[in-house]
Amino acid sequence: MMNKITLIGGGLSGSLMAVYLAKRGFEVNVYERRPDMRNNRISAGKSINLALSVRGLRALNRVGLDTEILKEALPMYGRTMHPIDGNLTYQPYGKEGQAIYSVSRGLLNIRLLELADEFPNIHLHFEHKCIDVDLDATTALFVDGQGNEVYVSGDRIIGTDGAFAATRGRLQITDRFNYSQSYLDHGYKELLIPPGPGASFLMNKQSLHIWPRGHYMMIALPNPPGDFTCTLFFPFEGEESFASLKTEAQVAAFFKKRFPDAVPMMPGLIEDFFTNPTSSLVTVKCYPWVKEDKLALLGDAAHAIVPFFGQGMNCAFEDCVVMDDCIEKYGNDWTKIFDEYQKLRKVNADAIADLAVQNFVEMRDKVGDLEFLNKKKVEHDLCELYPELYMSQYEMVTFSNIPYSEAMAMGAVNDNILRRIIQGKVDLNDQAKITSIIKEEKGAIHGK
Amino acid sequence: MMNKITLIGGGLSGSLMAVYLAKRGFEVNVYERRPDMRNNRISAGKSINLALSVRGLRALNRVGLDTEILKEALPMYGRTMHPIDGNLTYQPYGKEGQAIYSVSRGLLNIRLLELADEFPNIHLHFEHKCIDVDLDATTALFVDGQGNEVYVSGDRIIGTDGAFAATRGRLQITDRFNYSQSYLDHGYKELLIPPGPGASFLMNKQSLHIWPRGHYMMIALPNPPGDFTCTLFFPFEGEESFASLKTEAQVAAFFKKRFPDAVPMMPGLIEDFFTNPTSSLVTVKCYPWVKEDKLALLGDAAHAIVPFFGQGMNCAFEDCVVMDDCIEKYGNDWTKIFDEYQKLRKVNADAIADLAVQNFVEMRDKVGDLEFLNKKKVEHDLCELYPELYMSQYEMVTFSNIPYSEAMAMGAVNDNILRRIIQGKVDLNDQAKITSIIKEEKGAIHGK
Repeated sequence: MMNKITLIGGGLSGSLMAVYLAKRGFEVNVYERRPDMRNNRISAGKSINLALSVRGLRALNRVGLDTEILKEALPMYGRTMHPIDGNLTYQPYGKEGQAIYSVSRGLLNIRLLELADEFPNIHLHFEHKCIDVDLDATTALFVDGQGNEVYVSGDRIIGTDGAFAATRGRLQITDRFNYSQSYLDHGYKELLIPPGPGASFLMNKQSLHIWPRGHYMMIALPNPPGDFTCTLFFPFEGEESFASLKTEAQVAAFFKKRFPDAVPMMPGLIEDFFTNPTSSLVTVKCYPWVKEDKLALLGDAAHAIVPFFGQGMNCAFEDCVVMDDCIEKYGNDWTKIFDEYQKLRKVNADAIADLAVQNFVEMRDKVGDLEFLNKKKVEHDLCELYPELYMSQYEMVTFSNIPYSEAMAMGAVNDNILRRIIQGKVDLNDQAKITSIIKEEKGAIHGK
Repeated sequence: MMNKITLIGGGLSGSLMAVYLAKRGFEVNVYERRPDMRNNRISAGKSINLALSVRGLRALNRVGLDTEILKEALPMYGRTMHPIDGNLTYQPYGKEGQAIYSVSRGLLNIRLLELADEFPNIHLHFEHKCIDVDLDATTALFVDGQGNEVYVSGDRIIGTDGAFAATRGRLQITDRFNYSQSYLDHGYKELLIPPGPGASFLMNKQSLHIWPRGHYMMIALPNPPGDFTCTLFFPFEGEESFASLKTEAQVAAFFKKRFPDAVPMMPGLIEDFFTNPTSSLVTVKCYPWVKEDKLALLGDAAHAIVPFFGQGMNCAFEDCVVMDDCIEKYGNDWTKIFDEYQKLRKVNADAIADLAVQNFVEMRDKVGDLEFLNKKKVEHDLCELYPELYMSQYEMVTFSNIPYSEAMAMGAVNDNILRRIIQGKVDLNDQAKITSIIKEEKGAIHGK
């Protein structure tokens, strides 16, 4: 008998997972709450661009989409910092040629849906909002665009319905379900730097731009049409906060004072500020992610994270890869597939969730700090000089497939190495000395 | 205009808070899901006895109930440990004469409801299950015993509806509500040691009894009729677990092997084991606890904790005391009352939640350990010899009103003091030396 799988949520991870499953011959029904975005080029409801990196590219490669997506992406090779005084500084993200890629969420999602539609065993259903899930019968209840209730049966359900997942809501009312939702005191608002004359970029288009301001920051990512999407990450309450900026004059004065180089590039600032929503930033953790062979959560539905490491999509795509590997390994034994999937992924999802929160502090505060910049400079040189021996945490997360949990554990080891080198003022070219310091510190952790 | 307050939940903290509010002249409506337990002496749905200590007694004193309740309570002056070999050991909880009190949840709740009913401005409504809360209109929707929907308006709502509170559920769907529910891998089951001949106690009735078994334990608290309520805290899954004990023969063999001295006192063991429910153990944390001057959560509704420090009720009663103090301070400014209440209590509720989880490890595992017993002996002597200088964490939590958060912070300081004394094999009567060690360690933390 053919295995019929109901995927709830046709966003990025849902449409990718559908293709993985279809390639293995399963019958896949995808139910998406929103209208078909191929016909309605409306916002996908979240940030419009994303940073695609190695983990995400690996996942897209498995369905042959990586090269095509990279053609429409903009490489960002490092961070450009914009202090108030206007003296820009720059930190490369990795080694020569390594970049993260600014991609459009909408375009990527559309391309994945188009690919899914090529499979006769994938059936896409839009404007179907999930209302309830029956775990025993593996039946899901939807309300369609006309307000009709639709019951859908299948052999199992995969919940890819995002940070506020209905599927997770169903697990949440079972006994012994561990769950946490934790909000930052900061919200975010998207703003715009439109293209200059002749669709030109008004800033370096090969960089992610950061305006670090201590308790808050603005960032900007380039888009192919020549514009930049800016995001202000800002406290909800307090002296400088969304709550304190009530009038147009207050907003204008604040930006002029705190982001003087950006304001001339943002002609629609005031209108954008009052029109665009202020959104909150949540970390969701839960466990278990699966119910026997009946239901599994995947992507944001299992682990919503804050955006400061640019890993939300990459992590969700890596979930799909691991689920696919488990199917490869266990064939049609879904109890084993789901169980190994959750065990492999939980610890890594927790790690990237915590790293993402930590990185907010680094981005908004430390990247403007001279001592920190020096440390990053030494680290960059180390990576370049001793690529076999030393890898920065950022590199591990962004330019490798090393498990997030290992990358997190190596953070403290790397800090020790850097501290000893900086304090000892060792010559970075003193290969014997540097090698011995790195080996010693790595040995200390492995010996534990 | 009179201030009309809707209390949702007529359990221990709900009925106590009602009396506090009535004494201040407010109009109080209490809605309780269950039938009136004064007519139906059924289980209150939770453990049947509780350990009342200083914080709870202070709260009862404020309504003049402490003396009366103590008359029906049994003092427990220490812990009696039951190892497998039957050689009992004993640790006093505090100084000479200090005890925690085993009280009946049902009797205490009934006495509080009787007191509440004496106030003309308290109106008790039973069999009213809260379905929804309208935060803007401060209206609550109930379903009564006949299945009718009842809308209740008031000036504000206090949610005292327990660990699975409907009131908290309403806050949970507001933006930026931090929430976590975390389950232990252990569940619990209540069992019984009935009275001996002539309503006699079969074990020391002035002690809390513990059978520490490493990964799990059983405890027993005395009740005035001569019986003991036993609770088995036991893993849900694994080699020795609820899941592994499937047949009567398995249960009988397990208890005979692991609790040999208890089995002869438990004639109904097998029947109790298969009849009584297996319940889970959850820690719930959330924030904020209040919504403007409209709604506040109190007791388990705001912070459900595991039972291993015997502080669930004591902490909930302390919430009532602090709320009452805030009303005293701010009169009728409920935005200030609710805000100060939550700020004062959140940090302390978090602390006792974490201490309670820690204490499970101590009770099930360490109390059977010789090194640990020696440490407790030294600590007990220290407390007796230097009452002005040294206070154990257990004493701070149980026999004082020191904020839980301070008691938690002092744990590490106390550990340092004890380690130095034990390692240095100092004479406990060497007053100068002991005093200097204690002062030095306390100074170290205060200097931080």
